[in-house]
Amino acid sequence: MSGTVLALSGGIGGAKLALGLAQIIPGEALTVLANTGDDFEHLGLAISPDIDTLTYALAGLDNPITGWGRRDESWSFMTALRELGGEDWFQLGDRDLATHVERTRRLRAGETLSAVTEDFRRRLGIGARLLPMSDQPVRTKVLTPEGWLDFQHWFVRLRCAPAVRGLEFAGAESARPLPAILDALRDPALRAVVICPSNPLISIDPILAVPGLRHVLRECRAPVVAVSPIIGGRAVKGPTATMLADLGTPPAADAVARHYGDLLDGYVLDAADAALAPGIAARCAVAPTLMTDLASKAALARVVLDLADRIAAERRA
Amino acid sequence: MSGTVLALSGGIGGAKLALGLAQIIPGEALTVLANTGDDFEHLGLAISPDIDTLTYALAGLDNPITGWGRRDESWSFMTALRELGGEDWFQLGDRDLATHVERTRRLRAGETLSAVTEDFRRRLGIGARLLPMSDQPVRTKVLTPEGWLDFQHWFVRLRCAPAVRGLEFAGAESARPLPAILDALRDPALRAVVICPSNPLISIDPILAVPGLRHVLRECRAPVVAVSPIIGGRAVKGPTATMLADLGTPPAADAVARHYGDLLDGYVLDAADAALAPGIAARCAVAPTLMTDLASKAALARVVLDLADRIAAERRA
Repeated sequence: MSGTVLALSGGIGGAKLALGLAQIIPGEALTVLANTGDDFEHLGLAISPDIDTLTYALAGLDNPITGWGRRDESWSFMTALRELGGEDWFQLGDRDLATHVERTRRLRAGETLSAVTEDFRRRLGIGARLLPMSDQPVRTKVLTPEGWLDFQHWFVRLRCAPAVRGLEFAGAESARPLPAILDALRDPALRAVVICPSNPLISIDPILAVPGLRHVLRECRAPVVAVSPIIGGRAVKGPTATMLADLGTPPAADAVARHYGDLLDGYVLDAADAALAPGIAARCAVAPTLMTDLASKAALARVVLDLADRIAAERRA
Repeated sequence: MSGTVLALSGGIGGAKLALGLAQIIPGEALTVLANTGDDFEHLGLAISPDIDTLTYALAGLDNPITGWGRRDESWSFMTALRELGGEDWFQLGDRDLATHVERTRRLRAGETLSAVTEDFRRRLGIGARLLPMSDQPVRTKVLTPEGWLDFQHWFVRLRCAPAVRGLEFAGAESARPLPAILDALRDPALRAVVICPSNPLISIDPILAVPGLRHVLRECRAPVVAVSPIIGGRAVKGPTATMLADLGTPPAADAVARHYGDLLDGYVLDAADAALAPGIAARCAVAPTLMTDLASKAALARVVLDLADRIAAERRA
């Protein structure tokens, strides 16, 4: 099967599947659409955690231990920053820092986030296209018993400790989807839209909050297939399960499918959750979804694309 | 002898004598006044090369090989920046970078350069006070056959290659000396003002260009003693000799003394230049001025202070 693929992704979990897709879909036939709701300014630097995690993963520069940041990283900057009394709750490796400093410089010089992201991925030899969901800032805010907090403050500084009472994507209402995203979604060659196994509430929902994107996704002719980020009631990494529960959604694969609702044509869930498949409205595939190495990433990507292809074939039949 | 000492300094050469003075003058009895004409913004970061060289030297963190930057430095940031196509003509070590990032953040938050400099020197355990010549930006510009260039562009990027036809200290006319400098100069306990062996044209003249400073220095009751940055017609490091010649001043110890004119009460020149002493209006001392280790820095500092003390004693007599 040829054709193009558009993948919606947050950071670590999503980046694993994005890398799997990149093993199968050559070059720019794959477009990865990154959440920017986690973006923030720290120490005067424009930091885009999900774009960076995707960039490093697709370039083979990612840190396999932490899941974020770069491999073979050094930490001299943080050590010296601490000596000077600087804020040290957000870890910035020396190599990683170059990304933030150079991006910040270029944004201040008037370039768009998409232009900088595009240039970085080319320089790092990434074949797939990588797009922020919007060039306008969208900032996820978390409502906790302590009040509204900036996402990274809650996520990193407070280590997700305060319970989540609500979420807001500040700026989303005035953000515009990149024209390149709309073009990708209207491309007659589009084979599938993949919603990566990212946190639906804070990685995928901000993308869907960009005005027009949810509508164009629903209208798009290619099958939309999501992969469950929940395995046996737990998230592989991060606060997904607790956050779902805090906000009244059971941390379960079928509940995530219901969360996406009529956006989904297909859904891939883990073998551990096979019993939930009958209760899911979308067409399901059951497969191992834990991605531990490049082979398992590519294997899951194949399952996702096979499901999309079956759905498309049935539609044609 | 007790009393306070105020030292005017540029970067590398000046920092050596400043460190020598710090061996003799305890704690805050020594105030080092740093040139900020070399300051510039690079990659969106506020960089103050002379303040940093002085800070690292006084904190024992300086790099003895390069003369600038920090010892035991790592360069991961520059390597990664180059991969991303960033400007790499100005070397920023990973540890050094923390100084610039944190200073930039605090300046943007509304702090003054003097407040940030003061906080950094305390955190790094420096006993002496360290002050920028002004909290208002003064920027040295170099007139070359290619036109006016920003100082660091000429100095680092073009490696001082273009001949110097003129110098300008942009912003000096509206800069104000720090009140702490005026207080230090009017302190009845002031024992000496020391002009370190820095480039007179681009390290000391910008300080003297801050309105009022030259006048207060000339009026000050304590002896003003300079150390020649020229030994046997050559500068120890940097473009001093060539720049002097380019601008019509012979690169010689006596010419530098004449450049400072009636500001000087005393002048220390190297044994190699002893024959020039009779032609110098200020009271002279001849001593080894090449500072190769901590002992020679302290020894030169003692020569300077002894000369100042002799001048003061003669005045009292």
